[in-house]
Amino acid sequence: MNWVNELAAIVAVESTGVARAGHASDVSGHEAVWPDAVALPVSAGEVAAVLSWANDRRIAVTPWGAGSSVEGNPIPVKGGICLSLERMNRVKEIRLGDRLAVVEAGTKYRELNRQLAGSGWQFAVEIGGDATIGGMIANNAAGPKAVKYGSTKAHVLGLEVALADGRLIRTGGRAWKQSCGYNLTQLFAGSEGTLGVITEAIVKLTPAPAVREVVAARFGSVRAAVDCLGELRRLDAGAIEFLDRSYMEFLGEVVADTLFCEFHTAGHGEAAERICRAGGAESVERAGEELWRARLRAYTASQEANPGARLLTTDTAVPLGAFGEMVEFLQQELATRRLTGYLLGHAGDGNLHVILPWRSAAEWAAVEAFHGAAVRKSMELGGTASGEHGVGMGKREFLAAEHGEGAVAVMRMMKQMLDPRGVLNPGKVLPSQNVTYANGE
Amino acid sequence: MNWVNELAAIVAVESTGVARAGHASDVSGHEAVWPDAVALPVSAGEVAAVLSWANDRRIAVTPWGAGSSVEGNPIPVKGGICLSLERMNRVKEIRLGDRLAVVEAGTKYRELNRQLAGSGWQFAVEIGGDATIGGMIANNAAGPKAVKYGSTKAHVLGLEVALADGRLIRTGGRAWKQSCGYNLTQLFAGSEGTLGVITEAIVKLTPAPAVREVVAARFGSVRAAVDCLGELRRLDAGAIEFLDRSYMEFLGEVVADTLFCEFHTAGHGEAAERICRAGGAESVERAGEELWRARLRAYTASQEANPGARLLTTDTAVPLGAFGEMVEFLQQELATRRLTGYLLGHAGDGNLHVILPWRSAAEWAAVEAFHGAAVRKSMELGGTASGEHGVGMGKREFLAAEHGEGAVAVMRMMKQMLDPRGVLNPGKVLPSQNVTYANGE
Repeated sequence: MNWVNELAAIVAVESTGVARAGHASDVSGHEAVWPDAVALPVSAGEVAAVLSWANDRRIAVTPWGAGSSVEGNPIPVKGGICLSLERMNRVKEIRLGDRLAVVEAGTKYRELNRQLAGSGWQFAVEIGGDATIGGMIANNAAGPKAVKYGSTKAHVLGLEVALADGRLIRTGGRAWKQSCGYNLTQLFAGSEGTLGVITEAIVKLTPAPAVREVVAARFGSVRAAVDCLGELRRLDAGAIEFLDRSYMEFLGEVVADTLFCEFHTAGHGEAAERICRAGGAESVERAGEELWRARLRAYTASQEANPGARLLTTDTAVPLGAFGEMVEFLQQELATRRLTGYLLGHAGDGNLHVILPWRSAAEWAAVEAFHGAAVRKSMELGGTASGEHGVGMGKREFLAAEHGEGAVAVMRMMKQMLDPRGVLNPGKVLPSQNVTYANGE
Repeated sequence: MNWVNELAAIVAVESTGVARAGHASDVSGHEAVWPDAVALPVSAGEVAAVLSWANDRRIAVTPWGAGSSVEGNPIPVKGGICLSLERMNRVKEIRLGDRLAVVEAGTKYRELNRQLAGSGWQFAVEIGGDATIGGMIANNAAGPKAVKYGSTKAHVLGLEVALADGRLIRTGGRAWKQSCGYNLTQLFAGSEGTLGVITEAIVKLTPAPAVREVVAARFGSVRAAVDCLGELRRLDAGAIEFLDRSYMEFLGEVVADTLFCEFHTAGHGEAAERICRAGGAESVERAGEELWRARLRAYTASQEANPGARLLTTDTAVPLGAFGEMVEFLQQELATRRLTGYLLGHAGDGNLHVILPWRSAAEWAAVEAFHGAAVRKSMELGGTASGEHGVGMGKREFLAAEHGEGAVAVMRMMKQMLDPRGVLNPGKVLPSQNVTYANGE
């Protein structure tokens, strides 16, 4: 790879096997692909320089945050450059009076919250992985707290973005209210690094809740649990999670269809207890941190319990009222197809995951077929193939079915316009791009 | 206009002077321009047919909701077709269990809320004008409640959009959580009808507040009022409005720099009273509906008080912590320039309006110069030229200064891509498009 030396004149590059292997896969079951080289810029200028050069040379560039994505989003499927933002990890400004922080894209959200500890403020999105804020914006990650705070996209005031050809632009700004021109911020948010590389973000800060009341309610049926959701959603809920009986069994907890909720207003925990008891809960208790941590560790726990297996994770989100029907459908499908799957979800906003381990081609075919059935059912109910993991590699095939060919044609135009040579994160979001890259040379 | 007869074969058309004059101006001071004809489609299919035809013929098309915009957004500056959505005003679905409604774009938001009355649910954006939901989405309108609920864009789950060439596409969907492909919904929201015509929207429903505690606090100085904002924002505030002493005088109220707030949690009104008293308020009282109505009527009241005058309205929004500095700067500028201007704003999210009447070219030059100074100051503080009215005609000149040439170039590419013949709402958002239209023929 002669071009790696050229690249090394622009930016710090690592091309050892260790470095390449460490940037070849995320936590999904998608196959690892090594990049030819890992670029480690320390500034937006260096990111821009790498892109300008790679665009000229037609070398594939896959942006990398922390590699904690769940849908293959940062896997460099065409090789080329892994553009890691890990050295751009400075919290540049914390402005409590303006309720915002300015961070480099490679800043971990937990690091920002560590710096905010004790201030009464937080970056309000909380997810399982130790992700970077740039990656969370690019994937529009969400997690359990989204029922109260919305997905990551709702927390972005402005961005600095390096375009495919190396131009640096700024979108949005520091005002909380903006209605001045096309919303480029929200175009790049959720575009998974296929339209540009986020180098810096202005993010909202949110008051940290002063109260935290946690309630676990166990039900004899999915339907009984789901029937409580409407009333629970009217409380000041910071999270309304659902864990099905088989997943609780897997965790070694009491086997029951379980709602696990967090409330941020004093007395709302008690109100939730009343709602769940009236709704026929078999037991209701103030649960501690333990079950919460177990919930956040769902993915790694599934991995640990199935050594050697890969995982496929479904990410459907349906209209709120259809959540129960979706859960029952998936439980039924798992049973009929005799598949092992851990079913858990963000009941508060209709988002449901099934984590399915697989080991062989035959098992892959089976979980893949289940996935297709889940997505079709979600769409039939008016839902989406992806609530929070993004399209990545595994949801591309559903894009047209969900949005229609018309909308996908517009998405293609966006891609064509912003990345005409197709160098940015190839093989993600949009199906079948026919580009030949020079990085094999 | 021979083409008007052709158009009439596609869609209901009115071309009387009354109809044309009634679709020539919004509530801004921008000069009225008559469209050649008003098209009145009753379906998305008719909207698409009009666009397809107009695009082929290169006839300018300006979408129209209720004409209540404040920045010239729906004025058909190039003549041609006013595409009024007023006959597409059906609430198609209200789904409380899904927390959403599906409405045709011409539905007034007050009509949706009328249909929701008593249900415990609301469409949560409240603005002064009797606007259509399509228009509110297109302009990303906000109003006083945005401090709690966000701007209109935060309430849109999905859209049906007719593109310039007559293709109909759907964006988003019915799931509350979506991370599946580029966020086209947010691209069309706030694009002011320059990228496509919104024909239908899926909007979020929000619990109507069970509690409403209103507090008016009068201060001896702007600084004293503003110093309370940080603490007030931490309450469950449905609105935190600022009205400066000269505007209170204009309203015939007690002359003082006034905060006017609404809270949605029991006891928060009392907490706000304590905050304002501790902050040196001269008087604090539970105000009724009267001042609230006066606040919402700011624009029409300014108009009535200045018969024969036109109004220029500034719409800057600055970072939250800079609100006080912005207010003081504008008061000082009004005094120095000896201008009449009513200063009021959404203090909770940093958005400030000055309404300036003018009657002559000389007065126009003076208010225009003030406007420029206001926007420059806003940008200096990290703010925007438009918090909620959109770019329309009056803020175009500031677009590049605010976003930089790079971002504006991307906006131009969007426009070029989605409306290559430039037929959609010409003369808005982007400066200087050089298109010759056939509608003069």
